[in-house]
Amino acid sequence: MKEKKIAEKTIVGKINSDVLAFTVGDDPKLDLNLVVWDCLGSAAHVTTLSKMDVKPPVILPKERDAVVAALVDLIREAQQGKFVITEADQDVHLAIERRLTERLGDLGRKIHTGRSRNDQVAVDIRLHIKDELLGLTDEVASLAEELVRFGKKHQKLPMVGRTHLQPAMPSTVGLWATGYGEMLLDDLLGVEAAYVANDLCPLGSAAGYGVPLPLDRILTANLLGFARPIHNVFYVGCARGKDEAATLSACSQIMVSLSRLAEDLILFSMPEFGYFRLPRELCTGSSIMPQKYNPDVLELIRAKAAKVQSCVAAVNTILTAMPGSYNRDLQDTKGLYMEGLSVTRASLRIMALMIRSLEVNPQRLRAAFEPGVFATDHALELVAGGMPWRDAYHQVRDHLEDLRTADPDEVVAKKQSWGDPFGLDFDFYRQKIRTVRQWTKERRTHAYRAFSKLLGVPF
Amino acid sequence: MKEKKIAEKTIVGKINSDVLAFTVGDDPKLDLNLVVWDCLGSAAHVTTLSKMDVKPPVILPKERDAVVAALVDLIREAQQGKFVITEADQDVHLAIERRLTERLGDLGRKIHTGRSRNDQVAVDIRLHIKDELLGLTDEVASLAEELVRFGKKHQKLPMVGRTHLQPAMPSTVGLWATGYGEMLLDDLLGVEAAYVANDLCPLGSAAGYGVPLPLDRILTANLLGFARPIHNVFYVGCARGKDEAATLSACSQIMVSLSRLAEDLILFSMPEFGYFRLPRELCTGSSIMPQKYNPDVLELIRAKAAKVQSCVAAVNTILTAMPGSYNRDLQDTKGLYMEGLSVTRASLRIMALMIRSLEVNPQRLRAAFEPGVFATDHALELVAGGMPWRDAYHQVRDHLEDLRTADPDEVVAKKQSWGDPFGLDFDFYRQKIRTVRQWTKERRTHAYRAFSKLLGVPF
Amino acid sequence: MKEKKIAEKTIVGKINSDVLAFTVGDDPKLDLNLVVWDCLGSAAHVTTLSKMDVKPPVILPKERDAVVAALVDLIREAQQGKFVITEADQDVHLAIERRLTERLGDLGRKIHTGRSRNDQVAVDIRLHIKDELLGLTDEVASLAEELVRFGKKHQKLPMVGRTHLQPAMPSTVGLWATGYGEMLLDDLLGVEAAYVANDLCPLGSAAGYGVPLPLDRILTANLLGFARPIHNVFYVGCARGKDEAATLSACSQIMVSLSRLAEDLILFSMPEFGYFRLPRELCTGSSIMPQKYNPDVLELIRAKAAKVQSCVAAVNTILTAMPGSYNRDLQDTKGLYMEGLSVTRASLRIMALMIRSLEVNPQRLRAAFEPGVFATDHALELVAGGMPWRDAYHQVRDHLEDLRTADPDEVVAKKQSWGDPFGLDFDFYRQKIRTVRQWTKERRTHAYRAFSKLLGVPF
Amino acid sequence: MKEKKIAEKTIVGKINSDVLAFTVGDDPKLDLNLVVWDCLGSAAHVTTLSKMDVKPPVILPKERDAVVAALVDLIREAQQGKFVITEADQDVHLAIERRLTERLGDLGRKIHTGRSRNDQVAVDIRLHIKDELLGLTDEVASLAEELVRFGKKHQKLPMVGRTHLQPAMPSTVGLWATGYGEMLLDDLLGVEAAYVANDLCPLGSAAGYGVPLPLDRILTANLLGFARPIHNVFYVGCARGKDEAATLSACSQIMVSLSRLAEDLILFSMPEFGYFRLPRELCTGSSIMPQKYNPDVLELIRAKAAKVQSCVAAVNTILTAMPGSYNRDLQDTKGLYMEGLSVTRASLRIMALMIRSLEVNPQRLRAAFEPGVFATDHALELVAGGMPWRDAYHQVRDHLEDLRTADPDEVVAKKQSWGDPFGLDFDFYRQKIRTVRQWTKERRTHAYRAFSKLLGVPF
Repeated sequence: MKEKKIAEKTIVGKINSDVLAFTVGDDPKLDLNLVVWDCLGSAAHVTTLSKMDVKPPVILPKERDAVVAALVDLIREAQQGKFVITEADQDVHLAIERRLTERLGDLGRKIHTGRSRNDQVAVDIRLHIKDELLGLTDEVASLAEELVRFGKKHQKLPMVGRTHLQPAMPSTVGLWATGYGEMLLDDLLGVEAAYVANDLCPLGSAAGYGVPLPLDRILTANLLGFARPIHNVFYVGCARGKDEAATLSACSQIMVSLSRLAEDLILFSMPEFGYFRLPRELCTGSSIMPQKYNPDVLELIRAKAAKVQSCVAAVNTILTAMPGSYNRDLQDTKGLYMEGLSVTRASLRIMALMIRSLEVNPQRLRAAFEPGVFATDHALELVAGGMPWRDAYHQVRDHLEDLRTADPDEVVAKKQSWGDPFGLDFDFYRQKIRTVRQWTKERRTHAYRAFSKLLGVPF
Repeated sequence: MKEKKIAEKTIVGKINSDVLAFTVGDDPKLDLNLVVWDCLGSAAHVTTLSKMDVKPPVILPKERDAVVAALVDLIREAQQGKFVITEADQDVHLAIERRLTERLGDLGRKIHTGRSRNDQVAVDIRLHIKDELLGLTDEVASLAEELVRFGKKHQKLPMVGRTHLQPAMPSTVGLWATGYGEMLLDDLLGVEAAYVANDLCPLGSAAGYGVPLPLDRILTANLLGFARPIHNVFYVGCARGKDEAATLSACSQIMVSLSRLAEDLILFSMPEFGYFRLPRELCTGSSIMPQKYNPDVLELIRAKAAKVQSCVAAVNTILTAMPGSYNRDLQDTKGLYMEGLSVTRASLRIMALMIRSLEVNPQRLRAAFEPGVFATDHALELVAGGMPWRDAYHQVRDHLEDLRTADPDEVVAKKQSWGDPFGLDFDFYRQKIRTVRQWTKERRTHAYRAFSKLLGVPF
Repeated sequence: MKEKKIAEKTIVGKINSDVLAFTVGDDPKLDLNLVVWDCLGSAAHVTTLSKMDVKPPVILPKERDAVVAALVDLIREAQQGKFVITEADQDVHLAIERRLTERLGDLGRKIHTGRSRNDQVAVDIRLHIKDELLGLTDEVASLAEELVRFGKKHQKLPMVGRTHLQPAMPSTVGLWATGYGEMLLDDLLGVEAAYVANDLCPLGSAAGYGVPLPLDRILTANLLGFARPIHNVFYVGCARGKDEAATLSACSQIMVSLSRLAEDLILFSMPEFGYFRLPRELCTGSSIMPQKYNPDVLELIRAKAAKVQSCVAAVNTILTAMPGSYNRDLQDTKGLYMEGLSVTRASLRIMALMIRSLEVNPQRLRAAFEPGVFATDHALELVAGGMPWRDAYHQVRDHLEDLRTADPDEVVAKKQSWGDPFGLDFDFYRQKIRTVRQWTKERRTHAYRAFSKLLGVPF
Repeated sequence: MKEKKIAEKTIVGKINSDVLAFTVGDDPKLDLNLVVWDCLGSAAHVTTLSKMDVKPPVILPKERDAVVAALVDLIREAQQGKFVITEADQDVHLAIERRLTERLGDLGRKIHTGRSRNDQVAVDIRLHIKDELLGLTDEVASLAEELVRFGKKHQKLPMVGRTHLQPAMPSTVGLWATGYGEMLLDDLLGVEAAYVANDLCPLGSAAGYGVPLPLDRILTANLLGFARPIHNVFYVGCARGKDEAATLSACSQIMVSLSRLAEDLILFSMPEFGYFRLPRELCTGSSIMPQKYNPDVLELIRAKAAKVQSCVAAVNTILTAMPGSYNRDLQDTKGLYMEGLSVTRASLRIMALMIRSLEVNPQRLRAAFEPGVFATDHALELVAGGMPWRDAYHQVRDHLEDLRTADPDEVVAKKQSWGDPFGLDFDFYRQKIRTVRQWTKERRTHAYRAFSKLLGVPF
C-alpha cells in the first residue's frame, strides 16, 4: 500500500486513498451478497416515508413507485451477477444510492431521508441471515435424511461400539448413523434461536438515536416480513455483531457434529478397520504415492470446523468491551459470518454426498467383535441370576480370559429399549425431519410473500 | 508430580498414583457441585430398575425405598457442605456408590446395574445446568429491571448519542439504559435454547450402546422432570460437551453485553465526561496514588467476558474431531462450563449492584452537547422544507461553522417513534420481564415437584 | 454446489467435480503467492537430483540447466502477474509440473522424482514466511521510528498519565509515544523466533518418510539459503502448521500492541479530551450525520487484532490432536497465515501514516491536569521530609481537597530516572532500530544471493 | 453473593464487601505462588532505596538490612507453606506490607516508597515465569530424552508410515519417536523467546509514570538477575499481559505437539493396530465394562492442549483494545498463565512416564505392511531404470494389483539420507539436549547467585 497522493472523493466526503482502501477492505466483493436485501430494505423504507404523515410529504406515492421500480431493476441486475460496487462507492448502500440518483435525479437524493447506513446494513444482514438459515436448515435436514436412510438400511448390522476408542459394547451401524442424524437435528435448536434473534427489524432507528420524523417502524417491519421491530433504537446499534455471533454459534455446533462424523469415517475406513469405504472418485490421490486414495474431504471438514469456531471467536472478541452503539469494528463481523455460514453450508452438502456414497463391509464389521466386547452383557447375565452388579463386574473382570466370542447379531438383538440398537424409532426421525421441512417452508413463504407484495412483482 | 511407587486401588481397578492424580484432576472439588444431582439421578435409576419387568427382579420395591432414603441423607449432607470426595473415589459417582455400599451392603453393589458413569455424569450435568440457567435467567431479569428502573428515572435526561465514540445525535439516558436492558433480555433467547437442549434425559443409555435390560427410559425422564429422553443412546455419549457448549455460548452473549455496558460506564465516568459517578465504596484505591477511585469491578467484567469466551472456545476445540461416543477429553468440559456459568452469574449480580448505586450528573450531561450533535436534525428541517435529503446533508456539511447549540431537551423531544428516545414503551419492558419471571418459576416448580415426588420428601 | 455428473481428470487421478471443488478451495488464488517460491524450490531440487551419485543419473547437468531456465521464465511470468492456476491443476505444484512438461516433455515428468507435494508446499511456505517476516520487521521498525520521532518532538509536553483510565500521575506525550515504540520493537522477539523456526529446510523429506535415493538434503538447504535441513523427515510432515502458528503468534502480539495504541488514539481524540487530532482526510464520514469525522481506521485496527488472533486459534485448533504426519487439514492453515500476515502488515503501514499525520493540542493536554494528578508527588514530598510512605499516603488521601494544581511542566521535570518522562534515552531507540534494520538487511542479502546463484540470474 | 451491609477496611481504603470479594477473586490463593518473588522484589527495592542519593535518606543501610532479614523470614514461611493472604489483604503485596509493618513498625510503612503494586506484580510475575520456564525446559528435555531413547531402542523396527492416516510408505519406530523428540526440542525456540522477553526488569517504574526520586533502575535489575530494566516506564505498565501471552504461546506450541503424540498413541494402541501397549496400571477402567483399559491420560492431554490454547486466547482478548497502561483487567491474566503453565508442565511429566512405560509389538508392526506401502519405492526402481518419474508413477498406479509385499526391513534400509529412517543422527539429538540442559543450568545459577547475594543467605 504505497501512500497515494490524491484523496478520493466519495458521496460522503474526501478521503485519503490509503485510508479508503484500508477501510473499504473486501466490502465491494462481500456486499454483492447484500444487493438484493439492500434493495428490499430501501423499498420498505421509501414506502414508509411515503406513508409518513408530514406536510409537505417527503416522498409522494408515485415517487415511491418510481423508486421501487428502479429497485426491482437493480434486483434483477444483481440476480444476473451484473451489479458492480466500486471502491469509491465504499459499500452497497452508497452504490445503490448512486444508481438511483443517476436514474431518478433528485428523487434518488431523497431516499436516505431518516435512515443511516448503520440501520441499512443491519437490516440487510438480518434479511440475508434469515434466508441463509432456512437454506442451512434444509441442508441439515437433507444430511440427516441421508444418515437415517443409511441407518435404516444397515439397521441391525453389528458394529463394535467404542468408548475412548477402545472396543466397548455391541452396537450397530444403524445406531451409529442415526445417532449422528439425531445430533444434527438437535443442532437446529441453535439455528432456530438464531433465526428468532434475527427476526426483529432494525430499520427506522437511523444512527441508533431515532430521527425527528414520525416513521412507522412497525409498518417497515411488516413490509419486510419481520416479526416486529427491535424496540429500543440505541440497542439496534448495539445488536450488530450479536446477530452474527448467534448465527455463527449455531454453525459452530453443526460443524462440531460434522467433524466428529468425519473423524469416525476417517478412522473406520482405514484398512485396519475396513468397516466403510469411500468410492475412489471421492478421494484424492498423492503426487508421489501411486496407491493413495485419501479422504481429503473428511480431513478438510475437521479443518473447517476449526475455521468456523475461529469466526465465532473473532466476532466475540470484536464485540467484547466495544463501546455501545455502532463502531466501525463491526464492519469486520460481516465477512466473518458470511465465511462461517458458507463454509458450514458447503460442508453439509459435501457430507451428504459422502454418506450417500458410503459403502459398507459387513464381514469386517462382524469380524471386529473380540471377546471383551461381550463382557458387560455377560456380567448382566450374572446379575439376572441374582448376583449384585458390582460383584458380577469384578467376577468378569478377574476372568477376562474366559470370555468367548458370542454371536454379535444375537447379542445386539437383546438391546431393545427405546433408542437402543434394536429399539430405534424411525417414525421419530421421520416426524422430526418433517417438522423441520415444514418450518423452513412456512418461513420462506411468509418472507417471499411479503417481498412480492412490497415490490409489486413476484420475488 | 514425583513418580510414586505404589499404584492406588479404586473401585474399578488399580491405577498408578501419578496417573490417578492426573486423570482425577479437580474432580473431587468440582464434583461437589453435582452431589445432589447425582443422588437424584441415582434415585430415578433405582426406581426404574425396581419397575423393570424381569425375573428375578434386580431391585425390589422396598430395596428401592432403602436406597432412596440413603440418598436423601446424602443430599442433606451435601446441602450442609459435609459430603467429601477422595482421590481414590475418583469422582462423585464412585463416592456415592461407596457410601451406599458402606451403608446398604449388597444393595449398594446393585445400584450401578445397567448404567455407566457416562450416562450418570451426563444426567448430573444436565440437571445442574437446568437449575443454574433458571438462576441465571432470574439474575438477567433483575439486572434488566435495574436498567429499566434507572432508564425510567432518567427517561428524558439528554445525553449525547455517539457512534464511533464521536458525538453523533441527541439522545437520552433513558434510551441508553433501557437499550442495555433490552439487549440483556434478548440474550435470554440463547439461554432458553440451551435450557431446551438440556431438557432431554440421557440416563438409561449406559455406556452409549444400551443394555440388554428392559429399562423404561421414558419413565426415568419423567421422574427427573425432563421433557423426554434423548432417543438414540449412541448420541447420548456424543451429546456431552454440546450441552456445555450451548450453555457457555449463551453465557458468552450475556458477558459480551455486560462488557459493553461496563465499557460505557468506565468511559462516561471519567472526569472528562462526568456523566456518571460510582460511589467510592464500590471503587478500589491505589497503593501509591492516594486520590484514586478506580472502577475495578467494571474492568474485571471486561476480563470475565474474555474468560467466558475462552471457555466456549476450549469446549469446542475439545469436541472438534473427537471420535464419536465418550472420550475422556470430556472430563475437562465440566470445569470449563462450571467456571463460565459461575463467572457470568457473579458478573450479573455485581453489575446489578453497580447500576443500583450509579449516580448521574445532569449538568455535565447537558453541557456536553456541542453544535455538531444537532447537524442531522438541522438537515432534516431542511428536508421538511422540501430539499432532497442528500442536498440538505451536503449543505449542512459545507457550513458546519453555522451550527449553533440548540436546546437538548427540546431537540430530543421530537424523536417519538416507537423505541425512540421519546417513544420508549415501558409496558413493553414490564411485559418482557414478567414473561421471563413466569418462565423460570414454571420450570422450577415443575422440576422441584418431580424431585419431591421421587424422593418422597420435599426437595 | 450442485452435484455434477462427470469426474474431473487431474495429473494424479480422476476426482468427482464437487469433491475437487471442495478440496481445492481457494488454492488456485492463494497459491499465486507461492509460484516464485515453488520455482525456487524446484530449481534447488532438480540441482540436488543432478548431483546425486546414481547410475544412470536421474537428471543430467544440462537437463538441470534446461529446467532451471524454464523455471526462471515462470518466475518472470509470476512476477508480471501472468501465471494462472486452474482448478484441474489443483495447486501451484501440479500447475508448474504441467507447464514444465508442456515445455520440456519427458524432462518435465522427471522433476517430481524423490519429492512430494508435502515437502514442496512446506518449503514454499517457509520461503514465503521468511521473506514476509523481513518485510514485516521493516514495517515495525518504520512505525517505531514514527513513534519515536513523534515522541522526540513532544518529548516534554505534559500529558496526564492514567491507570484504569483515571487520571493517575504527571506524564508526557514523549513517554506515551516512545512507550508504544518500545513495545513494538520488543514484539520483534517473537518475529525473530518465528524466523529462526522457519529457517530450516524441509525439502528432501518427500512424503515424510524419505526415499531410497541418496538425496543430499544439506546441499538443498544451502541452495535455498536455509540454515540447515530439518533433521527428522517424519517431523517435517508434522512441522507444517507449527511454522504458521509461530508466525501468526508473532503477528498477534504486534496486533495487540497496535490495537492498544489505536484505542488510546480513539479516546484521546474525542472532543472531551482533544489531545490529538487526525486530519480530516484520514477520517471517514457518515451517510446521515454531516458533521462526522470518524476514526474508522483505528476502529478497524481493533477488529483486525481480533481477526489475527482468530487465525492463531484456528491453526492451533486444526493442529490439536491431529495424527502425526501430513493430513489434509493442513491445507487450511495456509490461507489463515497468509491472511493474518497480510492484515498485520497492512495495519502497520496504515498506522505509520496515522502517526505521521497526528496533530497535537498542547493547550488541551496541559489543561487536563486536575489536582488529584499531583497527589502522589505531594506524598513523596512529605516522605522527603521524613514521614514514612504509608503515613504520607494516608495524610494526602484524607485531605484530597487540599490538593492544588501545580505546574505540569515543573512536576514532570522531576522524573529523571532512566526511562522516566525526563529520562528518555533516544540513543537507546536509535540503536535498537539500527540493529533491527541491520538484521533484515543481512538476512535478505543472504537469501537473495543464494537465489541468484541457484537460478544463474539476479533474483 | 448476597449484598453485605458493611464495607471492609483495607490498607488502601474502605470497600463494599461484595465489591471486595469480586475484585479480589482467587488472588489470595493464586498469589501464594508469588510470595517468594514478591519478597525478593521488595528486598531489591529497599536496597535501591537505601542507595538513593537523597537527604535525608529514605531508608538507612541498617534499616535495609532489617527489612531484608524480615523478608528472609517470610520467604522461609512461604517455602513451608505457612504464609497466609486474607481477603482484606487483597493480594500478596499488601499482605507482605502488613506483615512487615507488624514486625518493623514505621519502617514497614516506608517500604512502598516509590513503587506501586503495578510494578511489584510485574516483577513478581516475571521472576516467577523465568523460574518456571527453566523447569519447563528441563521437562521438555527429559521427555525428548525418553523419546530419543525409545527411538534408539527401536531404531530400525519397521512401522508403516502414514499420511492422511492411510498407509503411505515404509518407516520405522525410531523415525516416529525421534521425530516427536525433535519437534519438542524445536518448540523450545518459543520458550527461549518468552524467557528473553521476561528477562527485563519492570521495577522502579511505579505506576508507569516514574517518580520524582533518583531510583537507580539498572541497579534494581542487576540485584534481581535481570538482563536490564525495561526502558520506558509507561511501556512497563503496558507490558503486563504480553509477558504472559508470550509464555502461554510457548506452552501452547508444546501442548500441540503433545496432543499429536497422544493421538498417535491412542490410535496405534487400539487392538486393530496393536503396535503399542500401555501397561494396565497407566490406564483407567470403566464402571460398567469390566474389560476396559482406557488411555485416559492421553485423551486428557488432548483436552489440556485445548485448555492451554484457550488461556492464550483469553489473555489476548483481554489485551486487545485495552487502553494503554495498567487496567484491572490484567488481574485475570495471572490465573490464566499460571494455569496454562502448570497444565503444560504436568502434561510433560506424565507423558514422559507414558513413553518410559510404552511397550512395543514388533510382530504387529511388521504384519501391518500391505503391498501398497511399497508402491512409491517400486516406482523409484523404475526411475532408476531410466523411466521419467511421472510415467513410473502412472505405471504403478495403473497396476496396483501387481504390487507384492516386500520385506519391510530391507526396504526401510534403503532410506539413508540424513534424517531418513536409516539416516538418524543420534549425536544430533545428544548435542541438542546437552545444549538445552546447559542453557537452563546457566540461567538458574545466574539468578540464584543474584538472589543469594541480595538476601545475604543462600537462596
